[in-house]
Amino acid sequence: MAKSKFEYVRLYELDDKLLKNVWMVVRVDGKGFHKFTTDHKFEKPNDLAALNLMNDAAKGVMSELQDVFMAYGQSDEYSFIFKRSSTLYGRRSSKIISTVCSMFTSHYLFNWNKHFKDPLIYPPSFDARVVLYPCLRDVKNYFSWRQADCHINNLYNTCFWALVQKGKLSTLDAEKRLNGTVSSDKNEILFSEFGINYNNISEIYRKGSTIVWTEKKCENGRIKKVLQLLTCDIIDNSFWNTYSASLDL
Amino acid sequence: MAKSKFEYVRLYELDDKLLKNVWMVVRVDGKGFHKFTTDHKFEKPNDLAALNLMNDAAKGVMSELQDVFMAYGQSDEYSFIFKRSSTLYGRRSSKIISTVCSMFTSHYLFNWNKHFKDPLIYPPSFDARVVLYPCLRDVKNYFSWRQADCHINNLYNTCFWALVQKGKLSTLDAEKRLNGTVSSDKNEILFSEFGINYNNISEIYRKGSTIVWTEKKCENGRIKKVLQLLTCDIIDNSFWNTYSASLDL
Amino acid sequence: MAKSKFEYVRLYELDDKLLKNVWMVVRVDGKGFHKFTTDHKFEKPNDLAALNLMNDAAKGVMSELQDVFMAYGQSDEYSFIFKRSSTLYGRRSSKIISTVCSMFTSHYLFNWNKHFKDPLIYPPSFDARVVLYPCLRDVKNYFSWRQADCHINNLYNTCFWALVQKGKLSTLDAEKRLNGTVSSDKNEILFSEFGINYNNISEIYRKGSTIVWTEKKCENGRIKKVLQLLTCDIIDNSFWNTYSASLDL
Amino acid sequence: MAKSKFEYVRLYELDDKLLKNVWMVVRVDGKGFHKFTTDHKFEKPNDLAALNLMNDAAKGVMSELQDVFMAYGQSDEYSFIFKRSSTLYGRRSSKIISTVCSMFTSHYLFNWNKHFKDPLIYPPSFDARVVLYPCLRDVKNYFSWRQADCHINNLYNTCFWALVQKGKLSTLDAEKRLNGTVSSDKNEILFSEFGINYNNISEIYRKGSTIVWTEKKCENGRIKKVLQLLTCDIIDNSFWNTYSASLDL
Ligand SMILES: Nc1nc2c(ncn2[C@H]2C[C@H](O)[C@@H](COP(=O)(O)OP(=O)(O)OP(=O)(O)O)O2)c(=O)[nH]1
Ligand SMILES: Nc1nc2c(ncn2[C@H]2C[C@H](O)[C@@H](COP(=O)(O)OP(=O)(O)OP(=O)(O)O)O2)c(=O)[nH]1
Ligand SMILES: Nc1nc2c(ncn2[C@H]2C[C@H](O)[C@@H](COP(=O)(O)OP(=O)(O)OP(=O)(O)O)O2)c(=O)[nH]1
Ligand SMILES: Nc1nc2c(ncn2[C@H]2C[C@H](O)[C@@H](COP(=O)(O)OP(=O)(O)OP(=O)(O)O)O2)c(=O)[nH]1
Ligand SMILES: O=P(O)(O)OP(=O)(O)OP(=O)(O)O
Ligand SMILES: O=P(O)(O)OP(=O)(O)OP(=O)(O)O
Ligand SMILES: O=P(O)(O)OP(=O)(O)OP(=O)(O)O
Ligand SMILES: O=P(O)(O)OP(=O)(O)OP(=O)(O)O
Ligand SMILES: [Mg+2]
Ligand SMILES: [Mg+2]
Ligand SMILES: [Mg+2]
Ligand SMILES: [Mg+2]
Ligand SMILES: [Mg+2]
Ligand SMILES: [Mg+2]
Ligand SMILES: [Mg+2]
Ligand SMILES: [Mg+2]
Ligand SMILES: [Mg+2]
Ligand SMILES: [Mg+2]
Ligand SMILES: [Mg+2]
Ligand SMILES: [Mg+2]
Repeated sequence: MAKSKFEYVRLYELDDKLLKNVWMVVRVDGKGFHKFTTDHKFEKPNDLAALNLMNDAAKGVMSELQDVFMAYGQSDEYSFIFKRSSTLYGRRSSKIISTVCSMFTSHYLFNWNKHFKDPLIYPPSFDARVVLYPCLRDVKNYFSWRQADCHINNLYNTCFWALVQKGKLSTLDAEKRLNGTVSSDKNEILFSEFGINYNNISEIYRKGSTIVWTEKKCENGRIKKVLQLLTCDIIDNSFWNTYSASLDL
Repeated sequence: MAKSKFEYVRLYELDDKLLKNVWMVVRVDGKGFHKFTTDHKFEKPNDLAALNLMNDAAKGVMSELQDVFMAYGQSDEYSFIFKRSSTLYGRRSSKIISTVCSMFTSHYLFNWNKHFKDPLIYPPSFDARVVLYPCLRDVKNYFSWRQADCHINNLYNTCFWALVQKGKLSTLDAEKRLNGTVSSDKNEILFSEFGINYNNISEIYRKGSTIVWTEKKCENGRIKKVLQLLTCDIIDNSFWNTYSASLDL
Repeated sequence: MAKSKFEYVRLYELDDKLLKNVWMVVRVDGKGFHKFTTDHKFEKPNDLAALNLMNDAAKGVMSELQDVFMAYGQSDEYSFIFKRSSTLYGRRSSKIISTVCSMFTSHYLFNWNKHFKDPLIYPPSFDARVVLYPCLRDVKNYFSWRQADCHINNLYNTCFWALVQKGKLSTLDAEKRLNGTVSSDKNEILFSEFGINYNNISEIYRKGSTIVWTEKKCENGRIKKVLQLLTCDIIDNSFWNTYSASLDL
Repeated sequence: MAKSKFEYVRLYELDDKLLKNVWMVVRVDGKGFHKFTTDHKFEKPNDLAALNLMNDAAKGVMSELQDVFMAYGQSDEYSFIFKRSSTLYGRRSSKIISTVCSMFTSHYLFNWNKHFKDPLIYPPSFDARVVLYPCLRDVKNYFSWRQADCHINNLYNTCFWALVQKGKLSTLDAEKRLNGTVSSDKNEILFSEFGINYNNISEIYRKGSTIVWTEKKCENGRIKKVLQLLTCDIIDNSFWNTYSASLDL
């Protein structure tokens, strides 16, 4: 029953249900993190505390939304994939987008002090979108896309900051130096000029973070679902085979 | 240029632009705040610190998104209205919904300690939706709807908790007692049984919180835009007339 | 370049692209065909000329839109399925819906005189919708749904009109008589009272019409694609296996 | 109740309701009418029979859909505007688009023989789209846009075909001759070279066709709504003022 004569304005709300039976991927991305990471003095090119915080936030989302069977994060972004059969919020697009984004934001702030000793100077925020994928090949390629992006940016940034921090180049000169180089050139610069073997760099930087639900045997013999953090390659099919029981394939 | 062969998966993103030249209203609402307010021992029926925190969060959103010309909040919800001509994020629905929701969440957590001495036990979250209004009458009625909702719930809750806290009724008996009563009955109960004149109750509880941009003269003579908090009636046209310069009518 | 200062009104057009890589099914259905078929004295329960006309209209659509790999029709409706990879009109929903619907309508009128000797009394029209299917199982079940609908209605109608036309019942009495009956009851009525073996009734009435592209060897040895009309069962997997080369499975 | 176990496939249908309380404009446009008009030997630059047929088709649509209060047509297109409060088909986008488009197509074919002595060689079709307009200014400018388009194309085509048909230029030379010319140049060519005063050309060619509902007094004194065809300027406000009683302003 209408509580007031004004309630008719609800009729302007439009249905925004998403197609059934396709994978829904929600990607959140930090807003203006170029400035936020600078203001909060994140280490360059990678701040381990920052990545751990992102991972905590993602775990928070997954704990609250059990239809998310996998998440992948790198830089200031995280992608969450819902199982095809999910009926969360009747698959209402705005509910799903806003809830994932709000939970991620909330866990990010809630856990800040666990990872950073200096407090937040101002509150960071994230945007989010949802994308539908109807076939498994493209689901895998979606995550491959994000991991390839991680790799490309990380190789560039690692090289760039080596040139600046160790090579004492100006940022402009570093940029010029890298202009037009391909992967092998950057690997070579790192190795010959700075003695860095790119492949020895911490995997979390090169591969990003993947979270899946796995089973763990408790002391009492019971089996419990726990969130497991991985930093492996997810482009290769071996990941999808190894974790097939955890994934909605 | 494509950074990797996987980039084609972007083509699954669909355009979600909202109709031009209509007012966009984003409403955020706390998720499961029945439990959250209980766990965090919010005062009943109204917790002033909680409302002040909501207002801070809303001011945070408005400071960051200057196309929002007015906001109205009550209970665990806040509505933000964008000027008709706003082109924020090209009016992409998911960007607008997620950004407002994330900013609100972030400011809520960021300001928690300012209002509560006990820390958050767990991170709260909000959902959000956007609704389009093509005419001014319905824009006004939208806000009237929310303020009428505030009034109806607050009168009920004030009565209910008076019966329980002062009248020593069980919650079940209080519910039964109020079953079938109309506004005047509840006013009468409050007045005759508890000596409470409902109209004397703090306006922020009865009317909710409205925020608009107003102009303030600085010491140096400059005029600057500031956020002003109101607790007035917004159903009556006098609000819309008085603040017409602040509103996109 | 804008031809006039008014061209900005185009900006109100919103993108309505449909998700990539899923099957698009467009179903057209006659508007108010209860009246249209009565006014045009269609035979009851089935008018063969009317069905042949529907089939001609469907063939017309398929000839013009080669991305449609299969169509199924019964009563006053026809469903067209586009191959998953179709990029027709950039998958713009309104273009696809309107074009299929308009072509169907146009071929229906164009071919009317071929099937009916009396001219049209007034112009019939159709509505159309598009539905997306991401998986093959549901594509098959979509067509099974329409064929089951054909069967259920046709058995009922056959029985009903036998009772009226041959059994001399009033339409009201025929309705009462069939109320609560199941399939086997209706088969029994047809057989014992009217000597009709339902399974001997023309297949096009019981199964509807299915159209697919098949290959035909021409006199000159060339192979050419032609539209083939079938009246077989499409619920059973044998149809899908037999015609797999013609279908986008 | 589900008639068969396959009925669940209906759940894939998504709601496509259009925003309330805004004007809906449906524009239909002939598909490939460059070819269709050539094949059917339409007169150049304007075929009066063809325009009359378009107008009959539009009147047919308006007679069937009384929520359409005005229509405007030129060349191979027609625009229909629904009153803001229309709830036709619950404002379902696909229903509205497909129905208007199908009715237009059907009336076009139904009336063909009334206007052309040669029969149709093949069935023509139309596409359709719906655009929402929230304010009157833009509604007027929408129709101004289409009428300006009519004017610009008609002036060009009139000049072009005068140069070809009377001036004996090749089509290529006529195109070259007009390249870079502005309105006044074209008026001048028409006047000085062919003695044609553009303003004396039939108004239906220069202004297109507008249809509104007006009231007519019958012999018996009753007032009846009839469709009235106009060929006046609709850019100027005088049209909107004169016919304000017929329009949903
Ligand atoms: N120093 C540092 N910066 C980081 C780290 N992770 C991410 N960032 C920065 C690098 C980029 O400037 C930024 C992420 O790039 P985006 O393309 O998301 O741009 P941004 O967030 O500035 O703008 P946006 O609002 O997303 O359009 O975050 C880190 O671990 N350390
Ligand atoms: N004690 C107390 N509770 C409040 C206050 N403001 C809001 N609440 C509570 C009362 C309601 O249980 C709840 C808001 O109602 P909602 O309809 O939004 O329900 P809830 O958030 O539980 O569920 P939802 O996730 O929104 O469907 O928040 C307050 O100042 N004090
Ligand atoms: N006599 C006769 N009637 C037929 C034949 N095929 C279809 N019809 C009629 C039977 C139904 O009344 C009607 C189709 O049912 P619908 O559910 O589509 O209803 P209708 O088109 O009247 O309304 P609608 O505009 O689709 O909501 O067409 C036929 O072969 N012979
Ligand atoms: N000869 C002649 N041609 C006309 C007349 N009215 C319209 N046309 C032709 C001229 C144009 O080639 C065509 C309308 O242009 P459109 O931009 O709609 O192109 P068309 O329909 O070919 O392609 P489309 O499918 O709409 O993208 O129709 C007429 O009265 N006489
Ligand atoms: O944010 P970017 O630059 O990585 O690119 P994007 O996220 O695809 O752009 P947008 O946020 O505008 O969709
Ligand atoms: O959340 P409620 O119960 O106030 O009602 P609602 O917000 O309109 O419901 P929903 O959040 O499901 O849209
Ligand atoms: O038209 P009906 O009665 O078969 O049912 P429907 O087509 O699903 O209804 P609608 O045309 O209103 O979508
Ligand atoms: O058809 P055109 O060329 O007039 O332009 P349009 O109709 O706006 O293009 P489209 O039909 O592709 O929307
Ligand atoms: Mg971005
Ligand atoms: Mg970012
Ligand atoms: Mg980023
Ligand atoms: Mg809610
Ligand atoms: Mg809530
Ligand atoms: Mg609430
Ligand atoms: Mg129907
Ligand atoms: Mg029908
Ligand atoms: Mg039907
Ligand atoms: Mg076009
Ligand atoms: Mg055309
Ligand atoms: Mg055209």
